[in-house]
Parts: sequence; C-alpha cells; structure tokens
Amino acid sequence: MTEAGRPALVTVDWGTSSLRVWLLDAHGAVLGEARSNEGMQKAREMGFATVLDRVLTELSAPAGLATIVCGMAGARQGWIEAPYAEVPCTLDHIFDRAIAVPYPGRDVKIVPGLAQTSSSSPDVMRGEETQIAGAVGNLGSGRHVVCMPGTHSKWVEIENGRVTGFTSWMTGEVFNLFAVHSILSHSIGEAATGIKADDPAFAEGLRRGLDEPDRVTSLTFGIRAATLLHGLPPGAAAARLSGILIGAEIASARKRYLAESKEVILVASGRLGEVYAFALGKAGLSARLVDADEAVRAGLLHAARVNGMVPEVSA
Amino acid sequence: MTEAGRPALVTVDWGTSSLRVWLLDAHGAVLGEARSNEGMQKAREMGFATVLDRVLTELSAPAGLATIVCGMAGARQGWIEAPYAEVPCTLDHIFDRAIAVPYPGRDVKIVPGLAQTSSSSPDVMRGEETQIAGAVGNLGSGRHVVCMPGTHSKWVEIENGRVTGFTSWMTGEVFNLFAVHSILSHSIGEAATGIKADDPAFAEGLRRGLDEPDRVTSLTFGIRAATLLHGLPPGAAAARLSGILIGAEIASARKRYLAESKEVILVASGRLGEVYAFALGKAGLSARLVDADEAVRAGLLHAARVNGMVPEVSA
Repeated sequence: MTEAGRPALVTVDWGTSSLRVWLLDAHGAVLGEARSNEGMQKAREMGFATVLDRVLTELSAPAGLATIVCGMAGARQGWIEAPYAEVPCTLDHIFDRAIAVPYPGRDVKIVPGLAQTSSSSPDVMRGEETQIAGAVGNLGSGRHVVCMPGTHSKWVEIENGRVTGFTSWMTGEVFNLFAVHSILSHSIGEAATGIKADDPAFAEGLRRGLDEPDRVTSLTFGIRAATLLHGLPPGAAAARLSGILIGAEIASARKRYLAESKEVILVASGRLGEVYAFALGKAGLSARLVDADEAVRAGLLHAARVNGMVPEVSA
Repeated sequence: MTEAGRPALVTVDWGTSSLRVWLLDAHGAVLGEARSNEGMQKAREMGFATVLDRVLTELSAPAGLATIVCGMAGARQGWIEAPYAEVPCTLDHIFDRAIAVPYPGRDVKIVPGLAQTSSSSPDVMRGEETQIAGAVGNLGSGRHVVCMPGTHSKWVEIENGRVTGFTSWMTGEVFNLFAVHSILSHSIGEAATGIKADDPAFAEGLRRGLDEPDRVTSLTFGIRAATLLHGLPPGAAAARLSGILIGAEIASARKRYLAESKEVILVASGRLGEVYAFALGKAGLSARLVDADEAVRAGLLHAARVNGMVPEVSA
C-alpha cells in the first residue's frame, strides 16, 4: 500500500529551451519542483544524464525512484529517440510506446511524440500529447477539441478517447520573428513582453485577426504604417501584433475544428491562459481552462501507470 | 528642341538597401545606368549628396542636369522628408508635391510616397507610386488593379486615373524571416534562393496557400513536419514556403480587389515576374506583365515632366 506524501515518481517535461521536474507521491501530489533553462539545446552539450542527476540530487529524490519524461528529450536530436506514435490512436497507445533510457539504478522512460503523417497536413508534437492525457483523461467519451497555445500552438481533436487529428499554428514563434527580426521591430522596440488581454490594442488586433485571418501578413504591415501615420506607441504595436496573430489562429482553427461545437478545452498557464480565454470568448467560443502544468503532471503520472512504474491507488 | 540620345534627365530609385540611377534622354531612352547597394541605410552614413555625386561622375552626367528621385530617400529617416500624399488622389497630384533638395548647381527633387490613413487599413508606399505611373500611364480610364510583388508586395486599385486604395503584404520579408530566423531554417538551410515557378514544390505550396490563406502560419509549420516525417529536401522546403506565402497573398488580394475583374497589371522584373505570373494564372487571374525597371523609369520621367524638369517631346 502506498502512502500519500511519500515520493513515488519523478516526472519530467523536457522542452527545447526549458526543463521542469516534479517529485510526486502516488496520488500525484507535488512534493518538490525544479525548473531550469537546461532544455534539450543545453542538455545536448552538458549531457542529459548529467543534468538529470544534478536536479534529482537537488530535489533529494530517493535513489532508484522511477522517472517518466516527455517532450523534446525524445526527439531524434534529444536524449534517446522515442519514435512518434501516429494518429489516429488512443493516448494509452502513445504511452505504451514509451522508450526505456539506459540509466544505472533507475527506471527512466521517455514518452513518444505524436505524428500526423498525411501528406496534405503533416504535423508533429512532443510533450503536448502528455498534456492532453492530463487534461482530457476524465472527460469520457464524445468529441473534444483541445487548444494548447504557445510557440507552436496545437489544436487537437479527440473522439471517444482517440486523438483523430491535430494542427499547429506558429503563433508564438511568429510573434517573436516579427517583433525582433522584422521591420516591425522599429515599431515595437523593447515592448514585446507582458501583453494583457484587457489592453484595447490587443482587442483591436484580435478583432482584425478574427475578421481577416487570410490577411495576416498584411495586417502586420498595417502596424508599421500605423506607427508612421498615427504614432502608434510601441506597447500598443506589440499588443496589436499579438492580437492579430492569436485572432488569425483562432479563426482558422474554428473553421477547421469547431463547425458544430463551440466548446474548447484550453490547456495553458498564467497570462497566456488569460489572453487565450479572452480571445476564445471574443470568437464566440466557450473555453474550459485547464492549467498546463497540472495537465502535464497528470499526464506523466498516467503514462507512468500505463508503464507499471507506479502502483495504482484507489481515489 | 531636344535631341534623342542627348542626356536630358537623371532618374533615381533610392530604396532601403539599393540604389539605381539611369541617365535618360528626353524620350526616356537609357543612356547610362548605375546600380549599387548604397540604399538609404548606407547613404545615411555616407551622405546622400556624396553618394549621388560619385554616381553622377561615374555616369558622366552633364553638370546641372535635372535629377528626379523616388523611394526611401524621401522618408523621414532619408535625405529630405517628402511628406506622403494621401489616397484617394491622382498620380499627378503625388508628383506635384515633389520636394526640392538643396543641391548646389543641380535641380534635384524627391517624389513623395503615398499613404492610406484610414484607421482600419493604414498603409504606406515609397517608390511604388512612381512604378504605377509608369505602368498605367497609358491605360486610360476605367478600373485597374496593379500587383507589385517584393519585400512588401503592394496591390493597388486605380479608378479613372486616381489611386483609390492599396494594401501591402509582407511576403518577401516573411519568406526571409521564416527561412533564416525560424525553426524552418533547419529545413531550408542554404536553399532559400533561386526558386522557380516550374518547381513542383512551389506549385504544391501555392495550391495550399491559395486554398487556405487563413492557415498560413500553420501551413508553414507543415514544412517542418514534412522534413521530419517525409525527408522533404531543403530546396523543396524553400520552394514550398515561397508558394504558400505567395498563394496566401494572392488569395487574400483577390478577395479584396478582384471580386468582379480577373485582370491584374503585374509590375515585376526577372524571376519574380515569372513566378508571380505563374501564380496569378493558377489563381484564375489574368496577368499583364510590365517590367518594373521600365515602369519606374517611365514614372520618373513623367514625374520630371509634371515638375517642368524636362521639356515635353512629341512622340
């Protein structure tokens, strides 16, 4: 019999540029947490095992405690490649394919990413599949649409427990490209962070992106023109850019996935969750917000159970 | 009486990153040409007059020959600001507002750019207004739609000799942003130049951009996925990216400007003209190609005539 409060599992979300590690008990309660910028890019240089060892020591994780990993650590250029599972498939099918990492004295497994191999709409994810499991695990049958905003926002369709398809929008990365590397950098300057849902310039950009998603690379030039012609301030330029890109993403995803339903499960944390919840509302959609950190921990715990790495517990 | 073959005018297209100078006779025939990378950005450091002096000496331009300039030299951060003319207006109204540059012994004037100050669709151009004059000067009355592809592609609506509205798409700049600074740089590598209309990967991207212009930041991620899942080669990745962006631009501009007509005056040179002519055809539009270099020279000659800088000649 397991005890609440006793370390039962280490869960790791190893992204491209960030590493997050939680020590959980068998019920999923958080006993310890570590975050660092030692994502895949840095860990490749330092050694994945070296980085993980140090973090586990910091967390005083008991020797031999099972460790489950999701994210870019399983990419070809990561720690060990965990080949993509392919849609359509169940979430448990993904977790069944977790790959063991040779690691003396500890059971370490990496969850695969998910691929959509159709030539008309090829797409990939690594890490989000685990968030989905945590977010929709208790929703039961029927059709669900999940929105996971970020650098490469993912919209996912789930029917009766199977992932049937998904699509990425490069919203976060495109915001950064425009704000830092394009002519809009002269309009935005250092104002590219901290955009809030209640900024009128965000709402204005959002309205335009929702109305004319096909004109996104044109609406963005309008920001530069508004600086030159109307003295648009840098903070408003950044907020308008964010609104345009998020609006275009939602309009495009709505057409693709929400012709019938208006319900979106929004998996996000903090300010990003607030901004997208506001934006989804303006698009006439109804968002149910699930915290992304909680979702990935719940998904990792489930993945560990599927792999027999922690005992089942009664609720 | 003027003579053919005798220098009558210096015409200058001074862009952000390039400078082009032609020595013309009064009929518009080219007697000499100089091109350099001393665009506005470099000329700001070196001095605009210093750069122009050297080029005119190289071309053996007669002392005191009138010089007409269009492009970014008239921007606020350029040589002397030539404040924007505002749409709707005639092309001659723009040229009437050319600004004289203090320049000992030589009549130098800079043509203003064009602004659309509406808060719903603010936009600006500098240089393209002169190309338009050269391209549509002989078309007479009626409604014309002009496409000028490039870093910031411009689509312009002209009715009975008045520019009634225009819209920019950041197609060329966005291609460069994605190819050089985004995750797609890992798919494209050094293959970002020399894309051809008859590349099947270009046609494939074009089809997708035309079909789903609202999904442009998603279709681009599909290129990365196609590299990972299907081994898409770098050259094909670059061509597909170009096709997606040009297809989305044309689909979006078609909706905005070509609901009734299918006729487009395409102002472009070389490979870019070929690529856009192919793309416009695939979009069901009919393109009449006008060489961009010829158009800007003809427009500058017309601007000089409006300003009484060269004598009228009989054809």
